[in-house]
Amino acid sequence: MKNIGFSQVNITGGLMGHRQKTNREATVHAVYDRFCDTGRFDPYFTDESKRAENYPKNLHVFYDSDVVKLIEGAAYLLKDGSTPELEAMIKLVEDAVERNSDPNGYFNSYFTNNEPENKFTARNLHELYTAGHLFEAAVAVYEMTGNRRLLDCSCRFADLIEKVFKEEKSAKFLTPGHEEIELALVRLYHATNEKRYLELAKYFVDIRGNEEELSDAKKYFPAGRYSQAHLPARDQRTAEGHCVRACYFYSAMADIAREYNDQELFAACKAIYEDIVTGKLYITGGIGQTRVGESFDRPYNLPNESAYNETCAGISLAMFARRMSELELDSQYADLVELLIYNAILSGVSLDGTSFFYENPLELDPARHKMADWANPDVEKLPPLPQLQRLKVFSCSCCPPNICRFFASIGDYAYGKDDDTYYVHQYFNGNMADGDVRIEVETNYPAENVVKITTENTRNIAVRIPGWCKNFTIDRDYTMKAGYAVVEGDGAITLTFDMPVTLITANHKVRMDRGCAALKRGPIVYCIESVDNGADLTALCVNPNLNETLTFNEEFGAYTIETDGCRIPDSDQLYYTLGSEPAPVAVRLKYIPYFAFANRGITEMSVWVRLM
Amino acid sequence: MKNIGFSQVNITGGLMGHRQKTNREATVHAVYDRFCDTGRFDPYFTDESKRAENYPKNLHVFYDSDVVKLIEGAAYLLKDGSTPELEAMIKLVEDAVERNSDPNGYFNSYFTNNEPENKFTARNLHELYTAGHLFEAAVAVYEMTGNRRLLDCSCRFADLIEKVFKEEKSAKFLTPGHEEIELALVRLYHATNEKRYLELAKYFVDIRGNEEELSDAKKYFPAGRYSQAHLPARDQRTAEGHCVRACYFYSAMADIAREYNDQELFAACKAIYEDIVTGKLYITGGIGQTRVGESFDRPYNLPNESAYNETCAGISLAMFARRMSELELDSQYADLVELLIYNAILSGVSLDGTSFFYENPLELDPARHKMADWANPDVEKLPPLPQLQRLKVFSCSCCPPNICRFFASIGDYAYGKDDDTYYVHQYFNGNMADGDVRIEVETNYPAENVVKITTENTRNIAVRIPGWCKNFTIDRDYTMKAGYAVVEGDGAITLTFDMPVTLITANHKVRMDRGCAALKRGPIVYCIESVDNGADLTALCVNPNLNETLTFNEEFGAYTIETDGCRIPDSDQLYYTLGSEPAPVAVRLKYIPYFAFANRGITEMSVWVRLM
Repeated sequence: MKNIGFSQVNITGGLMGHRQKTNREATVHAVYDRFCDTGRFDPYFTDESKRAENYPKNLHVFYDSDVVKLIEGAAYLLKDGSTPELEAMIKLVEDAVERNSDPNGYFNSYFTNNEPENKFTARNLHELYTAGHLFEAAVAVYEMTGNRRLLDCSCRFADLIEKVFKEEKSAKFLTPGHEEIELALVRLYHATNEKRYLELAKYFVDIRGNEEELSDAKKYFPAGRYSQAHLPARDQRTAEGHCVRACYFYSAMADIAREYNDQELFAACKAIYEDIVTGKLYITGGIGQTRVGESFDRPYNLPNESAYNETCAGISLAMFARRMSELELDSQYADLVELLIYNAILSGVSLDGTSFFYENPLELDPARHKMADWANPDVEKLPPLPQLQRLKVFSCSCCPPNICRFFASIGDYAYGKDDDTYYVHQYFNGNMADGDVRIEVETNYPAENVVKITTENTRNIAVRIPGWCKNFTIDRDYTMKAGYAVVEGDGAITLTFDMPVTLITANHKVRMDRGCAALKRGPIVYCIESVDNGADLTALCVNPNLNETLTFNEEFGAYTIETDGCRIPDSDQLYYTLGSEPAPVAVRLKYIPYFAFANRGITEMSVWVRLM
Repeated sequence: MKNIGFSQVNITGGLMGHRQKTNREATVHAVYDRFCDTGRFDPYFTDESKRAENYPKNLHVFYDSDVVKLIEGAAYLLKDGSTPELEAMIKLVEDAVERNSDPNGYFNSYFTNNEPENKFTARNLHELYTAGHLFEAAVAVYEMTGNRRLLDCSCRFADLIEKVFKEEKSAKFLTPGHEEIELALVRLYHATNEKRYLELAKYFVDIRGNEEELSDAKKYFPAGRYSQAHLPARDQRTAEGHCVRACYFYSAMADIAREYNDQELFAACKAIYEDIVTGKLYITGGIGQTRVGESFDRPYNLPNESAYNETCAGISLAMFARRMSELELDSQYADLVELLIYNAILSGVSLDGTSFFYENPLELDPARHKMADWANPDVEKLPPLPQLQRLKVFSCSCCPPNICRFFASIGDYAYGKDDDTYYVHQYFNGNMADGDVRIEVETNYPAENVVKITTENTRNIAVRIPGWCKNFTIDRDYTMKAGYAVVEGDGAITLTFDMPVTLITANHKVRMDRGCAALKRGPIVYCIESVDNGADLTALCVNPNLNETLTFNEEFGAYTIETDGCRIPDSDQLYYTLGSEPAPVAVRLKYIPYFAFANRGITEMSVWVRLM
């Protein structure tokens, strides 16, 4: 199967249409403004008055990656029409990258300005990571505009990297501390048809974690499992370490597996994917069980309040799942992408599109913040608590531009094709055109459960039956294939998915969710907030006999759900003989979509609610 | 009310009689031997061949405190008869303290040998803490033998401390970083009738956390809440910081409240006590919710696996509760002491008396240790997991000698009196004599539920009705008073306590115990281990309709309990629609007393078990 790129996909209306509009009208500009405020664009301006006083000392090693990732998003936004602001933003970066690249092709504002003598000497300083994001941005601008300026700079830089790392081996480290360049080189190869870039990507994947690399890894932080350098890629079977590093690397492994038909790499990818979804995945699709190393942790250890679930990690997992979907026909991959889109990733941005979560916890309790401050002046010694509100920008502000590029190109995740069949992975209202094939989707999914699809010139059309859906109807004959319903020919199809409000429980090994359930409807995970339900969410229980009322909320673009529950009265008693606990009082619980949490001031939030 | 000292109390038979025998025959010698092995006794030997090669560099600042705390225990053990070993142990220390004290009375092997110029300059180096333990040992030896050698050394040292800290204020800090000396000075006052020692204790309590102290605390670690120096004692209302420091200090506050009839201090003690028992107490009586600072944490944050519950913290809480019981007639204090004795403290020592837990978690999972090692070479960055087995000795080996002195003097906790009434707080088989008053207790409590008490020459006898007991019978007329049943006159009384096996649940705010219950019978908390129940205790559920079988276990000195439950089959699925989970299989669960856990090899353990 081959994915169909977002440039062939139009999304109009519905939750995702609205999100794309907000992305274009608010997010890209808000991130640009904050990046200007914080000096990230300083090396890109020629006007010195626009720069911070302490330029270039103010630069961080990863600032360029923030900028070029935003430009990647800006380029994708051109699909729905150019604007002077987007054009200017892209040109600013094109000019600067040309101007500031070394004659040999090297580009990195931090090193060039602050430590020119230390280029390619420190594995942990994100040099190749930044290069990778530059390549992705260059490919994006080239593909959207035909303009080769960034692409040419990227090729020169990639040639230098090939020479230094692969031919001469003269760099002080062997592979990047933060993966990203591997998948970017595959994209650069596809944009330029220059196979050396694919081979360089394969080289970085191949040597990572082999003996030579391991001995090197000891010398240069970050090493070992933290950066997936504990074993050769082909021997890895579990998801380990820093989640974003991990899933960018697994994405590259899947790319190389596909390009070289490498079954060993595919087997590694598949085992790692299974390891994630059977023990390390939050119900929202989030990954990152611990902020220690922003990492995967032991299976089933899925704490809710300290869930890290970095927004970028969600995006990187979607990237990995999409690539797995190309390697193996199985609807589970698109199921996971769907879960990520509407939950772990969408929660990363405010409804107005201008502020962002780095971590996406499944529980918030502002009172615990107060207590922690109050009880412990040595608060830095305690496990830190999650942010209570989205922020405009952070010191490590990788997530906001990632949100921008992800939603701008989300059409990438919607369709695929193989020799005789077109696949609809995601149900976005709009259409897809590929040669003389056209697919039109009319739906307000996932708010509503009906999807009308009209196709032209398809031999077969395969539509994903979501994993959460137990019953569905299709008004045409179909056969099931790996989770897709395959309909022959073209014409109109109407899909109706049973989309009941459902309580979900966790595997018994997940200690923190014992006795609790989470509410879900379709792919959307719900949560409760104290702004709707009063203080102390731990006192609330949900009645397993749901008695729900759905109300469409325009601001959220989704239904809110009220259902029966109860509240346990407060008590000073710490332990009770079973049966002597205070009698609960019946209440209606008001659930909102998880992705919309923390949009109405500081308030408690919980995904998992005690079962009555 | 006044407590009656253990020297007037004999304990014979039953669980506590057995524990005292093990303490005398095994624990004191095992700790002595390990302390010799590890160089703690090096400064006490004159024979250089017995010392470590790197003596005196090998000394730690707190080594003397370990030694003298053991000697305090050894002295108490003389009550049941002298032995050459105990005599020799005590004489070794008497000789050395006399020999190694400075002419001005100063005694501390570490400073004298390694940093003589730095005496009284560093608040964090346990100098006054060690002095306090020396004073307690000296009082113990003096009270048990009449021998004044350690007592005289202690008085000279206390005089020096008074001069340096209170009169001249020439030390580089104002109050100890680790409290202990305050309560020790009160004991020294009672042994010597020298009121200056009481006043010095009051002085240390009074200035702690006042403005002068706060400004000083900033300069010297450990400061602030960690060492209860965040507020003047009289303004404190919550239990904060390092638990052992805290409860030693609260014990001293209670002492001073009693000695000076200080109602403000009493109010502070009472509020702090309430704060502990309403939100910071494990069901076992353990305290220390986090290993970060070995500290109290936010109310209701009572994690099971990472529960710290230092053995010394349990002992210090019993010390505090006993003092509260003297300040206010209320059976809740003796209830807590009982809970501590049979659970959080008793678990600190192996059944054979020779190995010890520092922390006493409520859940153990060896597989998580393996996973942690395997998954994270940077394991030091992860929250450490609890020890799986008791150890013979640790680098900070405060708990083993504390166990020794606590059980040797546990009779201290059994009886009290006021003007017209004798109180029985704890039911230990044996007797108490006080002048012409004699109380004889015949029972196998808490294994059995019947207690026969025979008294001579009592005007009134008050027997505690345990807080866990809902129904009881007494074969004499009685009136209830603050949780005690008061019987007039003397003679024989038979108490029968209903002692059903009971499931206990936690306040709804304790997130980690949601959907779970703990089994208790009388004061004994139970747990399950995988050695009895198979691997993966998270899969086990207890049936709320108990169907129990009790079997007396000689090795434990208590009943084990089998009851109905079920096991959830293993599954690779991480989330389920409620009702579609794998069908559980009926099993019998085998519970053992919590105090006996980890005595049969490395195995999973859990106190809280999911409710069916």
